[in-house]
Formats: sequence, C-alpha cells, structure tokens
Amino acid sequence: MEKVFLYDTTLRDGSQAEGVSFSLEDKIRILQKLDEFHMDYVECGWPGANPKDTVLFERIKKMKLHHSKVVAFGATRRPNRKVKEDPQVENLVKAESPVVTIFGKSWDFHVTEALKTTLEENLSMVYETVEYLKRYVDEVIFDAEHFFDGFKHNPEYALAVLEAAIRGGADWVVLCDTNGGSLPHEVYEITKKVKEKFPQAKIGIHAHNDSDTAVANSLMAVLAGARQVHGTINGIGERTGNANLCSIIPNLQLKMGMQVVPEESLRKLTDLAHFVAEIANVPLPRNMPYVGESAFAHKAGVHASAVLKSSRTYEHVDPSVVGNRRKVTVSDLSGRSNVVYKLREMGIEVDERSPELIKLVEKIKDMEKEGYHFEAAEASFELLCKRHFGLVRNYFDLDAYRVLIAKRSTDNTPVSEATVRLKVGELMEHTASLGNGPVSALDRALRKALEEFYPSLKEVQLVDYKVRIVNESEGTSAKVRVLIESTDGKRRWGTVGVSENIIEASWIALTDSIVYKLMKDEEEGII
Amino acid sequence: MEKVFLYDTTLRDGSQAEGVSFSLEDKIRILQKLDEFHMDYVECGWPGANPKDTVLFERIKKMKLHHSKVVAFGATRRPNRKVKEDPQVENLVKAESPVVTIFGKSWDFHVTEALKTTLEENLSMVYETVEYLKRYVDEVIFDAEHFFDGFKHNPEYALAVLEAAIRGGADWVVLCDTNGGSLPHEVYEITKKVKEKFPQAKIGIHAHNDSDTAVANSLMAVLAGARQVHGTINGIGERTGNANLCSIIPNLQLKMGMQVVPEESLRKLTDLAHFVAEIANVPLPRNMPYVGESAFAHKAGVHASAVLKSSRTYEHVDPSVVGNRRKVTVSDLSGRSNVVYKLREMGIEVDERSPELIKLVEKIKDMEKEGYHFEAAEASFELLCKRHFGLVRNYFDLDAYRVLIAKRSTDNTPVSEATVRLKVGELMEHTASLGNGPVSALDRALRKALEEFYPSLKEVQLVDYKVRIVNESEGTSAKVRVLIESTDGKRRWGTVGVSENIIEASWIALTDSIVYKLMKDEEEGII
Repeated sequence: MEKVFLYDTTLRDGSQAEGVSFSLEDKIRILQKLDEFHMDYVECGWPGANPKDTVLFERIKKMKLHHSKVVAFGATRRPNRKVKEDPQVENLVKAESPVVTIFGKSWDFHVTEALKTTLEENLSMVYETVEYLKRYVDEVIFDAEHFFDGFKHNPEYALAVLEAAIRGGADWVVLCDTNGGSLPHEVYEITKKVKEKFPQAKIGIHAHNDSDTAVANSLMAVLAGARQVHGTINGIGERTGNANLCSIIPNLQLKMGMQVVPEESLRKLTDLAHFVAEIANVPLPRNMPYVGESAFAHKAGVHASAVLKSSRTYEHVDPSVVGNRRKVTVSDLSGRSNVVYKLREMGIEVDERSPELIKLVEKIKDMEKEGYHFEAAEASFELLCKRHFGLVRNYFDLDAYRVLIAKRSTDNTPVSEATVRLKVGELMEHTASLGNGPVSALDRALRKALEEFYPSLKEVQLVDYKVRIVNESEGTSAKVRVLIESTDGKRRWGTVGVSENIIEASWIALTDSIVYKLMKDEEEGII
Repeated sequence: MEKVFLYDTTLRDGSQAEGVSFSLEDKIRILQKLDEFHMDYVECGWPGANPKDTVLFERIKKMKLHHSKVVAFGATRRPNRKVKEDPQVENLVKAESPVVTIFGKSWDFHVTEALKTTLEENLSMVYETVEYLKRYVDEVIFDAEHFFDGFKHNPEYALAVLEAAIRGGADWVVLCDTNGGSLPHEVYEITKKVKEKFPQAKIGIHAHNDSDTAVANSLMAVLAGARQVHGTINGIGERTGNANLCSIIPNLQLKMGMQVVPEESLRKLTDLAHFVAEIANVPLPRNMPYVGESAFAHKAGVHASAVLKSSRTYEHVDPSVVGNRRKVTVSDLSGRSNVVYKLREMGIEVDERSPELIKLVEKIKDMEKEGYHFEAAEASFELLCKRHFGLVRNYFDLDAYRVLIAKRSTDNTPVSEATVRLKVGELMEHTASLGNGPVSALDRALRKALEEFYPSLKEVQLVDYKVRIVNESEGTSAKVRVLIESTDGKRRWGTVGVSENIIEASWIALTDSIVYKLMKDEEEGII
C-alpha cells in the first residue's frame, strides 16, 4: 500500500471560515488531538503575521508531539529584497518548527498585477526563499498559489515556478486551487502533466470547495500521482471551505487502497469531527459523509431490517470503521459496544448484556435526546458512568442557590450577586459572592463554601466556557448546552450541562467540574 | 452547445432527508418554482405507494406547467405476476403524467437475496414493465438501482438489465449509485463502458453523496456521455443527501460548456436554493457552493481591495451569474475601504478620508478589541454605522432591568424572573415576566413593555442564540460574546453583544435586534 501524507490546515485555512475564531487554547487542544490522530503535518499559523500566531509557536516549542510535524506557514520573500533581510522569512525560521510551508505566485497575471513585479523576479523569490529556508528547517513545502488557473493561462510559466522551487530544494510542491474553480477532470489532467514534467518531485494538492468538488479534486490528484493532501477537519475554511479531510481519509484508505492513517485513527474519525465542530462552535451538519449523525441512518421498516441482514449491500462502508454508527431505531447494539469500550477505558469491566449496562445506555440516550453531547465533555461522561456504578462519593449536597443581576441606566455594568447554600457532611454552608457575571458569581460562592473542606479546589481554574442552543428553532426558550473546560495545572477536563436555563446549565457543568477534580484527587490518593 | 437534461427529485428523494417532510401545498409550490426555473423533469412522488402522493398527482392533473415534465415514480412489476395485473404499475398509468420512471434491480445479489427471484425473471420484469408503460405514456425512464455496485460484481448481468430496458423501449437508462459509494473515476469508467456497449442509448446518472463526491460523480458521468442528471435542490436527501443540482447546474453550464437552463434561470439559482431551504425548514449552510451566503465572502482588508479591483482573478465565477453576491466581511483586519464598501451597501456615501469615516473605523476597531465580531451580526453593524451618522431614531430609553434566578434542592428547575423599566417618549413602562431562563424572561419583559407602542414586534422571533468566551484564559470572568439571530418571517438578522456579564451581553444583542426591526420597518414605511 502506498502512503499518502495528510496535511491539516484547520488551524490556518480553517480559521478563515466565517464565524470561526479559535482562541490560543482552542488551537493547542486541536493540535494535540490531531497529533493523537497521527496527522502527518499540522499547519498551525503564520508566525509574525499576527501576534496570536507568534505566541502560539512559542507555546508549541514547549510541547511534545508524538506523531505530527508542526508546520509554520508564510510567503516567499518580497520583491527586490534580500531573502535574509526579509523579516517575514526570518519569523519563519524563528518559529523553530521542523517544517515550513511558503506560498508563491504561479499565475503570471497575479505576479504582474498583484505583486507588481516581473515574472523573472518572482522565480528568484521562489528559488531563493526555498533555498534559504532549507538551511534552517528539515522540510520545506512550496504552495503554488492559483496553480490550476495559472496553468490554464500560461502552463510554461506555472511549471517554471514549480521548477524554481524544486531547484531550491523544496521537499514538496503543492498545487493549490486557490479560487476553488477547477473540476476533477482538469485537476487530474494538470496534475498528471506536472508529474510527467517532474517525475522525481513529490507533489501535493490543496483544494477549495467552490465548485463543490474539493474532495473529488483531491482524490483525482492522488490518482494522477500526488502524495500529499491538504485539507481541514469538516472542510471548514473561507467561502465554501477547504477539502474535507474527514471524507478524503476514508475514501483514500478504504476505497483507493492507499495507506493514510492507522486503522485505530480511522476509528476515531467521527470523534475528531465532532471535537473540532464543538471547539469551532460550528454545528456538524448531520448529513456530512462518513461522520455525520445521519450518514448511516436508515429509515425504520423493511429497508432497515434488510440493512441489518446484509448491511454491506446497503452501506458503502461499515460505519464502525470510521467510528460512526448505524442509526436504526430498532437496534442499539452499536451503542452498547461503544459504551462497553468507554467503560473499559475507565477501568470498569461489564458484560454487554448485563442489565446494569442496558440501563446506563438508556440513560445516555435519554440525556442525548435532552441535548447532552459528551464528545467535548469526557469528564461529565466519566462521572455519569461512575455514578451509575456507585463509584462517586457524595462530596456535598445543594440546598439552594440564587443569582441576581441588576442594572440601572446610571450603571456602567450590571451588578451580579450569588448566594449558595449547601451541606458538606453535617455542616451547612451559606455563602454569598459578587462576580463579573452570574456564572462567575456562582462559581465564587460555590468555592467559598467548599474550599475550607477541599483546599485542592484552589488549583482549579475555568479556562473555557461555551454555550450553544440545542434546539435553535425556539430561540431563547430552547435548551441551552454549556461546556466548561477546567484545569488544575496538571489535568484539563471538560464538563457539560443542559437546561432551558443558562444559569442552571452552567451550574450543572460547574459542579461536575468540581466533583470531577475531587474524584480524581481521591483516586490518586491526594485527598 | 450540447444539452444536458436536468431531473429533479427533491419532492421524492429529497423528502427522504431526516427532518424534512413536505406538505401537499409545499410540494405544489416547489413544483411551480421548478417549472418557472425550466427544470426539464420533476419527479413528484410514487402514486399509489402512499395516499399523499396519489392526491398530489390528482392535483397536478389540474395544473398547467410551462417548462417541466412531471414524472411519476414506481417499480417494475412484481416477480411471477402479469404486468397488467400489477396494481402498482396500474397506478403509474392512472397518474397520467407524461413521464414515468421505474426502478429495477441491476445487482445480481439484490435480485436473488432481496427480491428472491431468478436473474432471468428480473430481466423479464424490466422488459415487460417498460414495454407495457410505453403504450400509455410519452417517455419511460429506467432507473438501474445499485448499478455501479452491480457492475463491479457482475458487469455482464448489470448490462443485461440495461439491455432489457432498452429493448422494452426505455427512452433513458439511468445509472444509480444507490449506496453512494462510488468514486468519480469509477463512475467515469463504468459510464463510458455503458456508452460503448449501447452507443444509441440515452444515459442518465443518479448519484448519492455518501463519499462526498456526488457532484463530481455526476460531472464525470456527463464527460463519459450521460445526458440526464438526477439530483435535488441543495442536495437534500436521505443519509448524506443526493447530488446537489445547485452545484451541478453552474458547473455544467459555466465550466463544461453544456446547455442546461436559460441564463435567466441561472440567475435565479440562489433564490431557488433559499426558497427550497425555507420550505423544507432546513437552513441553507452558509458555505454552500455557488448559492451560500459565504460562497463569495472575502475577509481581510488588502485582499478585499484586490478583489474589488480584479474580481475575476479571485472568484471562480461572477456571483451575479448565479444570483448571489459578493460579501466583504468585516474582520479585525478591516480597513477603511472595507467599511466604505459596506456603507455603500447601506446607501451611505462617504469619502475614505473624511473625519467622520476615520472616527467610525476607530470605533469599530475599539469594539473589535473589546471582543465584538460583526461577521454574523450584520444588523448590529448596520445599527452601529447608522447611529454614527445619526440615522437611527431613539425608540426607547432603558431605566433599569433586574433578573433573578433561584433554585432550591426541592425544585426541578430554577425560577427566572425579570423586570424591565423603560421610557417610550414620555411614558414610563415597568413590566415583569417569568421565563424559562434569564434571557427569555428579559426578552418577554422587554416585549411586554414595547409591543403596545410597536405592534410589529410581535412578528419577531429569536431563532438562534450563541455564546462565546472572548478571552478564554480567564474563565468565567472573561468577556462573553452573545450572538442572536432573529426573524420576522420576511427577514433574518444577526445582532451581537459583548460584556463580562452574559445577561448584559444578551441584553445588548436583544435590544439591537428589536431596534433593527423597528428601523427596517420604518425605512420601508411600515411603521
């Protein structure tokens, strides 16, 4: 099986999608997840181009990745300037990532009109920048911007640009369909011509989805000899998005006989897709191929039972291979085995047919119907399971909470005040606190009540807080899902709460976060 | 230019999508819209198979269509039965539509396992049913179910099934990728073999999107000789959907030199997509190629001004050709030229160097630093600009609001109560309301105070509510960004609020939504 290398640009191109904006912490979490997934290359940003990305690359230097190569993205040097005097190029070296990708123009029109320089000078810019960077980093990848449009207008020049990069020592030349206007047969033919012209070169493909064919364009390029595929998780990206890696990976691996990721990773594909959707706060379309909730849905009835009898003739692939599951109202088998698998991870061994397990699966399903989503809230899921098996101690009992928010026209900001009354053992604690908002007021009042009993709670910080309407057609009366991300310096965990009331949903996620911390400390003998 | 015929199955396959269910009136409206659009064939349902479809075909008999041929869908006769004694076939004749499509099995495995009959009998079923129907209707189309899977397993038999249909007099044989598992190169090669085998036959393609390549599969089939393309508007359909006609039409017509629909229709494509999305109550993904809201969106200052200068080099097609428009989104890279462009859209002409504009850009930048994001909140952006130029009337003044959320251990859900005190003109209104949560309580109290002065506010519904922490490293004390999406049945608009306090941020977005509605009504002379 031939290897095709994956190149993820969710953190750069993906963050260009309308409505998506990743925080620093979001980016770190996604990078870690992609590393676990065995993504070959992860493009993290453009160091120097914006201060956020510079900080990110500083953070990355201290991280240990196991499977992915971090890529810094940038451009060729500016026209009429020495490469070593170009601060933008210097920032790429300073990022200290093992791989650098630079883009350069390959459409003659853009060279003269956008760059305002000569065709010759552009070739020097490409050659010199690649050659210079190769002295400092392991791998240099050259992105030929507007390659397909350029090739259609002036094939000689487009090829000359690639040649300059190859002469400079580029490890890969990547053909970018920047406007996303190319169709599969064109991508195939043009990529083939490139491969014929440069039989030794390693070629990549970078497709955008403006023609609704980005996945197909990527596959056709691989058929023509490309061995690196750029894309994003769920295809997020500016305009109509980038090529969707969640579709490309299984197509290549399951249908085209290519080696892409370990089978283990493939089984985590659906999880990865949901994870990124949650972090990006962009709901995953239920009809998304392979990973969507409806991707293997069968309407109940005759068809469904036929599917169960000989699924291979009704499903293009086995859903479990990509970590998804068949959705047929009559069967919950796949659900159970998933839960057994998760329980085993927590150290709980239980038989698939035990009544306890069946009850737990029912409970999970009910909660999912209510709007719970556990992909980004593993801590709440662990608590749910361990509570079900009586493995979580009762650290405190709520008696009451109350939050007041008030603002007058003369105030700049509203006042938020919370009171909490709870029992720890036989002791009743009643505390009050102000906060910047209702959730922080509640959080403070809750900690005030608990910290004297459980001092390690002082280590806990909330690092992220996300809210999503579950059934958005009803507006503010619909259910609200709150995701909280906490850390105690060593661990990081996510918890979830669902309610019609945003304060109650926050409260559920808050208390889960605190109980999880206490349970983990106890499991490790700290308290 | 060669003609490619369009075959729409939104009303049949499209209605199989999870969450979609068309009423009789919905179907009539969509049929009329498709007729205006010059859709060649419109498949309306399976008469006899369900009573709703039977009534629909009765209604259709009384309608006058100008451009589309109505198609009744059904199956070949049952095994071991005479065709004229099969009531299912009889219902197709009774529908009196000019075209009938019947599907039959072309995968040997399904013939023996699902139909439980012999391969020979299946060929007779196909031949006899086509031959019989041809006596009564103008055109008979044969859908070869599971054709690509069948061809991969037993090409001789799959071709024999097509031959039976052709011998029976089928006007078209349509190759169906029923499981959606085929890839573009396979579809191309197999369609080409069919065309070689039956050079006189008219061939169609019917693709599903399970491999995320349904559009590409359809195009590749056309390249191999297919001249009828099946699909749905927006690609709605069961599992991952059908081939998306909204992408296929412009690809064929603008890029592959095929004659598909009049130019006039193409300009109505975006409108058609939104229309069907509204009727189906499935929001149109903003990143949908060609017709989505973001399909021609450009971020960033420098880039946006380059786009305005020479759009053809940054856009794969001119958005107006498909009835869409360019969208310059305001992001934190935004410069003056972006804002001038947006102001022009609002009908405000202002010079790029005017002090008023410079002040406005400063204000926008300050708000962006605070955490505001206007990409999904165009209404707040418009209010901000128009307020800056004194173009927004003061509809009310806030005096105070107060929200209380309280829960005791004996309560299932917390109580949320809001009070609002505000002035409309000289009148002071003081209202109170409960709600499912604090935001809905505030929303209700606010409307209670305003609706008697502005009755059109009763039309406003909140359809989405999103919350995001802006500076996540400080957890619950960080700033919160609330995005609200509202509709009044005609328009849809987004508003945004930022504060350390989630209730205050919601309040800002809520009041913006209401002021925007009042301003628009006033601009249109409604109030």
